[in-house]
Amino acid sequence: MLVDGCLACNVLTGKIKAPGGTIYEDDYWIVEHSLSPVLLPGYLIIKLKRHCENLAELTPEEAIALGPIIQNTCLALSRVLKPAKIHVCSWGEQVKHIHFHVIPRTSDMPVGNLLLLIYMRIKKLLNQLGLSRWVSDEEAAAVAAKVRQELEQ
Amino acid sequence: MLVDGCLACNVLTGKIKAPGGTIYEDDYWIVEHSLSPVLLPGYLIIKLKRHCENLAELTPEEAIALGPIIQNTCLALSRVLKPAKIHVCSWGEQVKHIHFHVIPRTSDMPVGNLLLLIYMRIKKLLNQLGLSRWVSDEEAAAVAAKVRQELEQ
Repeated sequence: MLVDGCLACNVLTGKIKAPGGTIYEDDYWIVEHSLSPVLLPGYLIIKLKRHCENLAELTPEEAIALGPIIQNTCLALSRVLKPAKIHVCSWGEQVKHIHFHVIPRTSDMPVGNLLLLIYMRIKKLLNQLGLSRWVSDEEAAAVAAKVRQELEQ
Repeated sequence: MLVDGCLACNVLTGKIKAPGGTIYEDDYWIVEHSLSPVLLPGYLIIKLKRHCENLAELTPEEAIALGPIIQNTCLALSRVLKPAKIHVCSWGEQVKHIHFHVIPRTSDMPVGNLLLLIYMRIKKLLNQLGLSRWVSDEEAAAVAAKVRQELEQ
């Protein structure tokens, strides 16, 4: 059910821990902060709790549970960060295990899918070069805690 | 419930017609081909049937119906086009009405979110310059018909 060498599975088994730990989970999906080093505070990942690589192969129960966890996560994130927009994307090209990126695009970030991806790539590069700073795990965990609190209400 | 001047609403009211028409719909969501001029065959749009701009504001019924329509659409598209991957993304920056882009990434297209977006932007530009060609509405409608057939099974 879980696959050795899959980054998403390694988080599920606890080999790697997302800042702030589990934010929310149901029987099929789990919400966590994106991993350290963190590029953007509140950049969350909604991930299937078993290893499966294609949305086409979701079970009926997993499919039914997907929308509500997206909706609830977006609502909680909206309340905590008040982003201008939330991008919700499943690409699955590097980490094939089904997951959705939930990216809060705040008003100081560029508008649009392409510009946002370029912004994030360049920001990552600048961080790697030491010309900009990563979000600390503590800051990410603090956002995760606030989102968890909203989701528990 | 529908908003004048919203492109997505204009398709819902029939002012604009997607190639091949409605592929599938339930009480809350509708699947159609992306609009003409078509960049990629089988680039589909899953759209909410009322005007709402934030995933956070989906009703419980809309949220429950979202996952199954994503799953079914990906399954049908997989069978018709056999893509290497399907990207499923909600950005909502230009057309704010909630919708998901369902983009079949075939093996002759670049791998990864950023490269795929750049590929599509450049392909669009080349088409506009007449250096490459749009997918004809007939070809898009033919793919839509095949996806519809799969979804009806």
